[in-house]
Amino acid sequence: MLIKLINPNTTAAMTELMGHTARKVAAADSEIVLATSRSGAASIEGHYDEALSVMGVIDEIRGGVPADAYVIACFGDPGLLAAREITASPVLGVAEAAMHAATFLATSFSIVTTLERTRIMSEHLVRSYGMQNHCRRVRATDVPVLELENPDSSARAVIFAECEKAVRDDQAEAIVLGCAGMSNLAKHLQERLGLPVVDGVAAAVKFAEAIVGMGLRTSKIGDLAFPLPKSYAGKLAEYAPAALVRGIDHQLAGRTAAERS
Amino acid sequence: MLIKLINPNTTAAMTELMGHTARKVAAADSEIVLATSRSGAASIEGHYDEALSVMGVIDEIRGGVPADAYVIACFGDPGLLAAREITASPVLGVAEAAMHAATFLATSFSIVTTLERTRIMSEHLVRSYGMQNHCRRVRATDVPVLELENPDSSARAVIFAECEKAVRDDQAEAIVLGCAGMSNLAKHLQERLGLPVVDGVAAAVKFAEAIVGMGLRTSKIGDLAFPLPKSYAGKLAEYAPAALVRGIDHQLAGRTAAERS
Amino acid sequence: MLIKLINPNTTAAMTELMGHTARKVAAADSEIVLATSRSGAASIEGHYDEALSVMGVIDEIRGGVPADAYVIACFGDPGLLAAREITASPVLGVAEAAMHAATFLATSFSIVTTLERTRIMSEHLVRSYGMQNHCRRVRATDVPVLELENPDSSARAVIFAECEKAVRDDQAEAIVLGCAGMSNLAKHLQERLGLPVVDGVAAAVKFAEAIVGMGLRTSKIGDLAFPLPKSYAGKLAEYAPAALVRGIDHQLAGRTAAERS
Amino acid sequence: MLIKLINPNTTAAMTELMGHTARKVAAADSEIVLATSRSGAASIEGHYDEALSVMGVIDEIRGGVPADAYVIACFGDPGLLAAREITASPVLGVAEAAMHAATFLATSFSIVTTLERTRIMSEHLVRSYGMQNHCRRVRATDVPVLELENPDSSARAVIFAECEKAVRDDQAEAIVLGCAGMSNLAKHLQERLGLPVVDGVAAAVKFAEAIVGMGLRTSKIGDLAFPLPKSYAGKLAEYAPAALVRGIDHQLAGRTAAERS
Amino acid sequence: MLIKLINPNTTAAMTELMGHTARKVAAADSEIVLATSRSGAASIEGHYDEALSVMGVIDEIRGGVPADAYVIACFGDPGLLAAREITASPVLGVAEAAMHAATFLATSFSIVTTLERTRIMSEHLVRSYGMQNHCRRVRATDVPVLELENPDSSARAVIFAECEKAVRDDQAEAIVLGCAGMSNLAKHLQERLGLPVVDGVAAAVKFAEAIVGMGLRTSKIGDLAFPLPKSYAGKLAEYAPAALVRGIDHQLAGRTAAERS
Amino acid sequence: MLIKLINPNTTAAMTELMGHTARKVAAADSEIVLATSRSGAASIEGHYDEALSVMGVIDEIRGGVPADAYVIACFGDPGLLAAREITASPVLGVAEAAMHAATFLATSFSIVTTLERTRIMSEHLVRSYGMQNHCRRVRATDVPVLELENPDSSARAVIFAECEKAVRDDQAEAIVLGCAGMSNLAKHLQERLGLPVVDGVAAAVKFAEAIVGMGLRTSKIGDLAFPLPKSYAGKLAEYAPAALVRGIDHQLAGRTAAERS
Repeated sequence: MLIKLINPNTTAAMTELMGHTARKVAAADSEIVLATSRSGAASIEGHYDEALSVMGVIDEIRGGVPADAYVIACFGDPGLLAAREITASPVLGVAEAAMHAATFLATSFSIVTTLERTRIMSEHLVRSYGMQNHCRRVRATDVPVLELENPDSSARAVIFAECEKAVRDDQAEAIVLGCAGMSNLAKHLQERLGLPVVDGVAAAVKFAEAIVGMGLRTSKIGDLAFPLPKSYAGKLAEYAPAALVRGIDHQLAGRTAAERS
Repeated sequence: MLIKLINPNTTAAMTELMGHTARKVAAADSEIVLATSRSGAASIEGHYDEALSVMGVIDEIRGGVPADAYVIACFGDPGLLAAREITASPVLGVAEAAMHAATFLATSFSIVTTLERTRIMSEHLVRSYGMQNHCRRVRATDVPVLELENPDSSARAVIFAECEKAVRDDQAEAIVLGCAGMSNLAKHLQERLGLPVVDGVAAAVKFAEAIVGMGLRTSKIGDLAFPLPKSYAGKLAEYAPAALVRGIDHQLAGRTAAERS
Repeated sequence: MLIKLINPNTTAAMTELMGHTARKVAAADSEIVLATSRSGAASIEGHYDEALSVMGVIDEIRGGVPADAYVIACFGDPGLLAAREITASPVLGVAEAAMHAATFLATSFSIVTTLERTRIMSEHLVRSYGMQNHCRRVRATDVPVLELENPDSSARAVIFAECEKAVRDDQAEAIVLGCAGMSNLAKHLQERLGLPVVDGVAAAVKFAEAIVGMGLRTSKIGDLAFPLPKSYAGKLAEYAPAALVRGIDHQLAGRTAAERS
Repeated sequence: MLIKLINPNTTAAMTELMGHTARKVAAADSEIVLATSRSGAASIEGHYDEALSVMGVIDEIRGGVPADAYVIACFGDPGLLAAREITASPVLGVAEAAMHAATFLATSFSIVTTLERTRIMSEHLVRSYGMQNHCRRVRATDVPVLELENPDSSARAVIFAECEKAVRDDQAEAIVLGCAGMSNLAKHLQERLGLPVVDGVAAAVKFAEAIVGMGLRTSKIGDLAFPLPKSYAGKLAEYAPAALVRGIDHQLAGRTAAERS
Repeated sequence: MLIKLINPNTTAAMTELMGHTARKVAAADSEIVLATSRSGAASIEGHYDEALSVMGVIDEIRGGVPADAYVIACFGDPGLLAAREITASPVLGVAEAAMHAATFLATSFSIVTTLERTRIMSEHLVRSYGMQNHCRRVRATDVPVLELENPDSSARAVIFAECEKAVRDDQAEAIVLGCAGMSNLAKHLQERLGLPVVDGVAAAVKFAEAIVGMGLRTSKIGDLAFPLPKSYAGKLAEYAPAALVRGIDHQLAGRTAAERS
Repeated sequence: MLIKLINPNTTAAMTELMGHTARKVAAADSEIVLATSRSGAASIEGHYDEALSVMGVIDEIRGGVPADAYVIACFGDPGLLAAREITASPVLGVAEAAMHAATFLATSFSIVTTLERTRIMSEHLVRSYGMQNHCRRVRATDVPVLELENPDSSARAVIFAECEKAVRDDQAEAIVLGCAGMSNLAKHLQERLGLPVVDGVAAAVKFAEAIVGMGLRTSKIGDLAFPLPKSYAGKLAEYAPAALVRGIDHQLAGRTAAERS
């Protein structure tokens, strides 16, 4: 099974870090292909960064080898529904996967994320995914996303302290890490805190395997059907859905990447 | 007061139609500047079209003469929060404006929109805007967006029939038109139906005037603060926020377009 | 356009204060007529005061020159739906208008109000208006309503301090002033706090202009249709709806006050 | 125990009918005192009628012999919170009581009410009382309130037919009668339909007995504390809270009517 | 009227305590029969204890003299819907009864319960019963259930202190005691705190009397109809519904215990 | 990895059927152990059946070889939280798993279940799991659970017809099968309907593998911590938690079944 892990920001080092996590949890017969967005922000820390990251996500789904499943590896799940429209292969977002996983393990969780200004984005997702009764609180640390990559920073200590507050003040029984760039911290935090710490990258990879393993694909009835063919203008002319449908017609035939190889 | 009305699709005829509506309701001292997106879909009829329409919206806010307020004239309100991040001038979406207006006039409304596949997008907005208790139902007509421009089509008859169903079956007390391209139908439908028919283009223009008239601007504390400066790569390099902030520094000084001229 | 601003309490000085705010923001062609309730409480600080304020509001809509729009200028929006029943002209409440305006400018706001005992009334309105996801918190200052009129009191300092707490502790990105009597503080607070401070009096006046400018009137289908004619007894005999309908029949003809003059 | 049943409309025949129901279910040691509002509408069929019915309710609580509990016998529960402010004796609304009772007997119920235009009022109460998950639907019959008193009308047949629809189409497992004037129909409908039919008059009387029997009284901390003393003007001057507090000071001493006699 | 009060835990001393409360509030013509569960946990302090307490509740409803109403006297309301299925007599839970009662007396309440680990159980009930807008907070004291029986413990002081916090920090206007074992504290706490303190044992008994007094019984249409006859295996063979229906057929005839005697 | 699939009803044929489904989707290194409840109902079709099925579920978790994960294979997810309390290994319910899986594939789904009387149980789960915005409707077919096993019955045709109604009338974009006994129908229905048909047995097995694969276990902080040791009486004496903790202490050491072997 071929799973494509797409980093919607353009920082390759973060893709590597997430790829490391993904490969550690992937099943023996899963192949993880990594992709770093080729356009947009070095880190996604607001609505503007996020809106502009969708193009890069779409590029990675339209181009390259078709995958059996895709993972969008940014905690805002940018372009999730658009991505589901252009492929029948399952597409998982890491925020979505992490929150759903947490509900299997605890009756409550808190999210520990990076910047205060991205907190509202997590709160919106909490509501979209129906997690209002499970999510006690979204906690921002004001650690910038790229600081997570810096081994000399105090980022880890700050995140650990915020997790402790979540346990003590929110009575959270599990932690959801609110940034894909924290995926390498999950194991360490879990051991120190003594409760489930859910990283969305691992969760999305495993849930993608699960969904593919059940023989399920994205619904092509209704709003997730392939986009209607139409003309696109200007800088985006090449994104016109007609071309797109041709590019994925082997998927429409219902074969998986494994079957095709 | 200068209000820029941005059509997020690339169909200029639809922009003209909406501009006509906008100018009819605008105050004497409001100037309506029209902009048709220069990239993306000819019509927005799905998550994919919508996600890719945001770039065009952003282009129109970043470029050209700064406006006192912006209107995003597509019923999905694409890129609304991203747009609010990059300017201190108020930005209004037409779906948002129409729904809020309807609550001032009736205790319930139904939305009559175009394609069945876009219905979920309106339903998501209903929840985002807290309209669950006011909106009885979102009704799709399966009229394609561009068919609204065709004087020979049965589109108007179909829409009228659906509005009648909303009154009879949903007990809706007002109608919200679920597509900016229907803005020229509002008056006619209102007269035939005998209840408020709210068009978002008119509503957004008038609410934009209202907000500017109160001396209010978008909050620059928190998630709508200007984007953090950072590098952007690839096709989107020019969208890096640093350049952006320079482009709007006169806005930060708090002067309106009227004062500047 | 004639807008009647109705103060549901009987304190004329507060009406003057609100009238000052209203006229500062009103369009050049809007005429603001002020009305102070002729019956009921000097200030509205509880369910009882509020319930008994509705008669005064109704008196001002039934009597005097018909207006193109009415504003109910008390943060509890007393009698809002009853008022909408007896006129086809739009009726706006200041709480309603302020909360809706705040959602155009920020993803979250807190309300800063007067007495602790009125906090629940704002909380009920937050839910009625679908603002649960936008309103972070309703904060009471325990400043009595009429103390706002007293230039020697510490009221302003207390309110400013509470706004600061809303920003710091609730991460509110905008402030909604929870009492029409605070309308003269908005500009000052906004400048000191550096974020949008929304006063409902200004918001309701501007939104009333907007709604009238769109050619929209209150729905007369369903629960906001004119009251059914019937007999009224005792002290309220004169309020029987039959008489009422006669009083407003020119409105039913659909002409605005401007057209009638 | 003395329970005062207040009919907020001015139709004495309806009071008698409800009194009959109340006395049939009342405990042996409960005395039911009936009061018909002395001002306002002959029937309450809209927001306007309802808003103006509050004065009559308040008059009956302020005047006459103090009761151990009050029942507001109109399905809109008009003035419920205002009434709770001016007495420490429990005040029950019939809509409130009926809905709460229904949840003790069934996992779902539908409300069968009178006019379509009053349906929204019940829907608002459903939300205020947290009944959204229990109430399947509010069904209007378009039977006018006073028609219920007319033995020759088809009102009963229409109501029975609507109850049958609620069972068949909503899968309702209990019926809540949506008008206090239907209280005499409950037993008959229950026998014919074979499921619980809850009348609010009976429910409110029994719950009032229950609350008094537990030694509980309305909270006088917070928003239901006695109204703040202040001046009232015009036609309502006599309603100023100061006078009121004197009128009920024996209640403040915490004695029940039974103890006082 | 015969009301059977079932203690779902096996601690007879607690049953006595609750019986004392029940008899103090019961009407003169109500007979309270006490039952202590004969199987399961000495105290119910978690999901596991609660799930296993349902058998004991069912045993007490199936066996012994049929009652006119049943009260399940544990704040988790264990087995409430299962119990309602096997008898037409009303069944009340104490959590349910206490929360509903509190809404008749205050616009907000907090629940003060025992162990932190049972807090989520109360929160789940708050949502099931539609109390989210009334319940400010569930507060755990970490007093073990059986410690409430110990006169030498600090349990009472701890509970009083938590109630004070609820008033000060949550602005709760009433307290709901979150454990049936606290029923003897209600009066004392109410006097010291000066606000309504609602004990579910008293509330359930009085509401049971009220429901029976209205002539209402559990709906036998839909999910609360008697269980379908079928075979049961193993240790639970005797619980097969067929036998059950025979045991209660006198109830199906609609007679009350009073009538049968 | 050892996954124990527990059928909470006592019908071994149904366990076999579900085991067949489970093994078809399980990973090569997963071993599926089947368990049929040894006590309780032959089929679970109501609150009573469900409440009494929990003992059988608990027996299977407490006894036999410890598993790396448990699946509760009945669409009511009976005893889910109790089960999570007594083991650190993940426990998945099939309703929970199916609904979460469906949200990864479609923006809306309908549930097609067996008896009308069990519909409310699914509706309660929809709310518990935060699926209100995804689940369009729960549809009952009135096919008895055990009829699903009968090859000569019309059960399959009835279920297919109901799925078609869900697509046509609810605009559902995916189907969730509302009974574990339907698990063998998923593939067939999916092919005929052309949209995702989610069976909870497959979903729970695959999600269990995913959760174990991530190294996550049930939170042992808070309400899912191991039950407090205490005495249990009567028929349930052997269920006292103290014995239980001894039985699973190897699990506390954090080793998986794979590691132990």
